[in-house]
Parts: sequence; C-alpha cells; structure tokens
Amino acid sequence: MKVKDKKSRKTKNINLVIVGSIALDTIITPKSKMKGLLGGSLSYACLAASFLERCGMVGIVGSDFPKKHIQLYRKSGIDILGLHIAKGKTFRWTGEYSGNMNERRTISTELNVFANFSPEIPPAYRNAPFVLLCNIAPQLQLRVLSQINKPAFVIADTMDLWIRNEPVALKKIIQSIDMLTINESEARLLTGKYDIRQYTKALHSMGVKWVVIKKGEHGSVLSVNKRFFFIPSYPVHQTIDPTGAGDTFAGALIGWLANTQNIELTNVLSGILYATAMASFCVEGFGLSKLIKLRFGRQKNSQLFERIIEISSSMTFPNVPKTPQD
Amino acid sequence: MKVKDKKSRKTKNINLVIVGSIALDTIITPKSKMKGLLGGSLSYACLAASFLERCGMVGIVGSDFPKKHIQLYRKSGIDILGLHIAKGKTFRWTGEYSGNMNERRTISTELNVFANFSPEIPPAYRNAPFVLLCNIAPQLQLRVLSQINKPAFVIADTMDLWIRNEPVALKKIIQSIDMLTINESEARLLTGKYDIRQYTKALHSMGVKWVVIKKGEHGSVLSVNKRFFFIPSYPVHQTIDPTGAGDTFAGALIGWLANTQNIELTNVLSGILYATAMASFCVEGFGLSKLIKLRFGRQKNSQLFERIIEISSSMTFPNVPKTPQD
Repeated sequence: MKVKDKKSRKTKNINLVIVGSIALDTIITPKSKMKGLLGGSLSYACLAASFLERCGMVGIVGSDFPKKHIQLYRKSGIDILGLHIAKGKTFRWTGEYSGNMNERRTISTELNVFANFSPEIPPAYRNAPFVLLCNIAPQLQLRVLSQINKPAFVIADTMDLWIRNEPVALKKIIQSIDMLTINESEARLLTGKYDIRQYTKALHSMGVKWVVIKKGEHGSVLSVNKRFFFIPSYPVHQTIDPTGAGDTFAGALIGWLANTQNIELTNVLSGILYATAMASFCVEGFGLSKLIKLRFGRQKNSQLFERIIEISSSMTFPNVPKTPQD
Repeated sequence: MKVKDKKSRKTKNINLVIVGSIALDTIITPKSKMKGLLGGSLSYACLAASFLERCGMVGIVGSDFPKKHIQLYRKSGIDILGLHIAKGKTFRWTGEYSGNMNERRTISTELNVFANFSPEIPPAYRNAPFVLLCNIAPQLQLRVLSQINKPAFVIADTMDLWIRNEPVALKKIIQSIDMLTINESEARLLTGKYDIRQYTKALHSMGVKWVVIKKGEHGSVLSVNKRFFFIPSYPVHQTIDPTGAGDTFAGALIGWLANTQNIELTNVLSGILYATAMASFCVEGFGLSKLIKLRFGRQKNSQLFERIIEISSSMTFPNVPKTPQD
C-alpha cells in the first residue's frame, strides 16, 4: 500500500518496520562520561538496518528532541512516518559500565513521553513482511505486532526488566515471533537453566523457532531445528562503549533479511555474520558515533567486508580431524 | 633412551613429559560437596593425554596418597617413573563454585609435600620432544624445562596466583615456550589490556608464538601469526564441576601433537578441536569421574568423535556472504 502525505512523501514499499525506544543517553565508562547522546534501541536498530534497507520507525520523542537527530534519521533513509513527537521531554537513560565492560548498571531512567507510548502503526507500514520488535515492554511489542498483517519474519529482543516484571506478556510475544534475540544471562534468567543446551530447549518450547543467544565479545549462537551454530565476534580494536551493540546486531540482521528476502538457514547465518561485523563497529565509539561515521563514510562497504572476511576466516578450519593412530 | 628398573619396566620411548600438581580436592558446587577427589593439574592433563599417547608424569604425592590412584595412572598408560612419593601429606585443595559456574573461589590450600617439590626429570624423559608444563610455580616449570634437551614443542599453562606473585619468572617461562594456554581473565591481568587484539599482541611480544585463550563455555581462541581462530565449546548436557577442564584441554592437545608429531597450523587446530571435545566430558562429572568413565569405556572413540563432529558442524558455515543489492 502506498501513502502520500506531507510528512513522508517518500513513504513507499516499506518492507521493514522497527519499533523500539528513542532516548537521550548519558553513558559513563571507566575512562569517560558522555551526556545527551542520541540512543535508544530504535535509533541503533534503524541506523544499522538502513545500510541495506529503508525501514519504517515506530517510536516516540518529546518536543525537546533535537532536530538534527531527526535529520540524521531522514538522511540515513529511515522513514519517520511512524515517529510520534509528543509534548514533553524525551526518554532519558543513564548507564555506567564497570571495569569489565560487559557489566552495565542503570543509574537512572526518566521515561517522560515514553511512559504513555501506545504505538500506532501507519497504514503504509501494515503490510511490511519484516518486523523487528526492539527491547520495549512486551505489551507494546504485542500492540505493534497485532497491527501488522501476517508478517513473514518477526524478530524480537527483550531485557531482564521484562523477564522479571512482565513474564506473561513476554511469553505471549515469544510464541508470536519467528526469532528471539536474547543475552545469555537473560536466557538463563528467563528459563532458570544454566547450560545452553537446556535454556535454548526451554526457549524453543515456549514456541519460537529461531533463537539467537547474544554473548557480547564471545560472539553469538544460533539455535534452530536442534542444531547450534557458533558465530565468533570480531576482535575489536578497542571497546569504547558497548551500548546498543545488541540493537545494532538485530537491526543489521533484519535489514539483511528484508533486503535479501530470504529466510533460509544459510542466508540467516550470513545475516548473522554481517550483523556481527556491524555490531563490532558500534562498540568502538560512544553511542552511535562510529556507526554514523561508517554509514556516511566513503569506504562503508569495504570496511564492512574486511571485517566479514576476517570473522569468516577465523572460522576457517580444517575438516573434521582424522583419527590419529592409537 | 631406554631405561629399565623395577618401578617402570615399561618406560621406553617417552615422547611426552607432563609436569604439574597432584592434589586431593574438596569441591563445593551450588548442589553438592565432594571430598578427597583425585585432582591436580597433572592428574587431569595426564589422563587426557593418555587417550592418545603414553606420557611421563613429573609430580609429587605424600605417603598418604591412595594406592588406587597410582593404579589408575598405570592402568591409563601413564609412566610414573617421574612420580615422587615423599614422606608427609599430599597437597590438598578446597574450592567452591558459585551460581555462575565460571566463578571459582579457593577456600583452602594445604601445600604439604608440594611445598618442597623440586622436580627431577628421570633420564628416560630428557629427550622427550613434547612437554606440557601444567599450572605450577613458574620457577618449577623453568626447572623442568632446563632438564629437557631441546624439546620440539612446549606448552605451558599458568594462573592468577603466579601472575600476581611471580611475574619475573613467569615472563621467563613465556619466552621459553612455544604455546601459552591462559584464561581470558588471566591474560587481561597479565597484560593490563582488555581487548583480545591488544592482550594477545602483548603476550606475543613477550616471546611466545602460539597463544590459546581459554574462555570456558565460550570456547577458545588461537592467536598465531597475526591471525585469530575461534573454536566454540561443545554445548554440554549439564555442567557439574568445571575443575580441571583447562588441564584436560592442555593434556589432550599435547597428547594429540605428540601422537601426530605434527605442529603445523592445521594440525594444531585439529588438536584444539579434539581437546575441546575432551574437556567437555570433564565438566560433566565431579573431578575426573567422567573422564575415567570415558577412558575405559567401550565407546570411548565414538563418543569423542560424535562431539568432534558436532563442534565442527556448529562451525560449518556458508561461504563469505555475497553483497546483497544495495
């Protein structure tokens, strides 16, 4: 369905819809403190997806939201018909990373306009075959999903907050989607199981076919049809700020799938490899800075391919070893 | 050189020498407490190596050391000419694993006879081309190494205790060996660097060509000649007790290399894959129990091959992805 209005003259053929949060972040690491960074799961996921596919963003910001950020979305080829600008302040989040950059502590959360967010999907988005439900309340994820006509492939992400506070709605979401991306610690929290063989089994039994376990610097594991696939992370040059790496990963993956229009196993694996390379850029700068540089850099593709090749070759392996003489 | 004496009529052609600790362990996990288990880095490493290669063990126990354990060594095809039985009590170690089984706390260490251990290498071992220096004081590792004539390939392991207390001797060992196996957290502690690209560079600059970063359930990374190779772990059925997994890994790897007599990259990688499968059995039982079952089980080889194939196939991956249409 095509729609033309003043706000989105270019809105057409939206194959990919992404819903999530938009935030102004304060990020504290052992070495630095950065204030007022553009963040939120939706910003990371849409920017990452935009490398390959125009996506429709569904989110909310306040009237204080800097115009330059909206310009960035537009310039990246993100459709903002589904972006609601409400009276009030934009959602703000402050987080701190400790010595081990894998450990994050939320210092403060000011929901502001996000507190009353009730996502409405523009008609132009309702036939999108690919959907990414970034980490927001599972009730909101369900609300978005219910407004889209039989999508072909839906990925959802979540976090510990919803596992603890909204387990019923979360389980509804899990049985309604095709792929769940989830951190290792969250998979354990949600299932009460420690070993990957056990917690992935428990997740599949909730009704989802594809499970991607995100392990940060340790890479990721795809569990599907009783098989595991391990994808190492790219050995980054320096971890500056891990915020948004998981959203970048999910955004890049759904962008790949929407662009290739192929959800066979081998293509999903290629997409995960591509998404792993993209996420490796994310952590090498504060907030979105490195992704933005990459997105608008002249060597965008060669830089991405270089990392994809390096990840692939780190998995290049001799055949199953022969039996040595006993 | 062949040696015949009453104690070791079978000592001949020792291609592989392993030095390390022998202990009687008490292990506490969230679910159980087990006392008086046979343990120590040497026990794990020799038992693992013995699947493929007869090895000479260099270690010390007290007069209280149960005879059945010595029988186990012998039965496994471990040469005990280098095993010193001293007056006094055997080394004892008590450790506790917390909810996340990756975190270990040492509750008590009674060195006993180990306090005065000064390893003497039997003449029959002095031309062994393959040497594994398990985790003991780096001074003792150096002492062993100095008694062996130009070995072809030496692997050493270490731990945080020596990184903190004996950095000078440890650095001497690192520049004298071919391969260092080290936990990720220890690599960071030793080098003061967080990212793998940085800490492996720092380790190579200490003078060691091959570095294997052990990441437990997250697998391992081989860093050599400016390339990284990622090897996923086997998704175990249940983690019961992680004690000795690293020693099992190192023992299986040096056993593979000694047996194949080939230290080319592709064979080292095959060895790491094999060692990964072996270590996965180790963590599925208390102490050495699962390894012993496997060692003397009728289906030893088929069980190992099954896991090697599963690890390999979890890395089986489509070629470097093609560029989707932009």
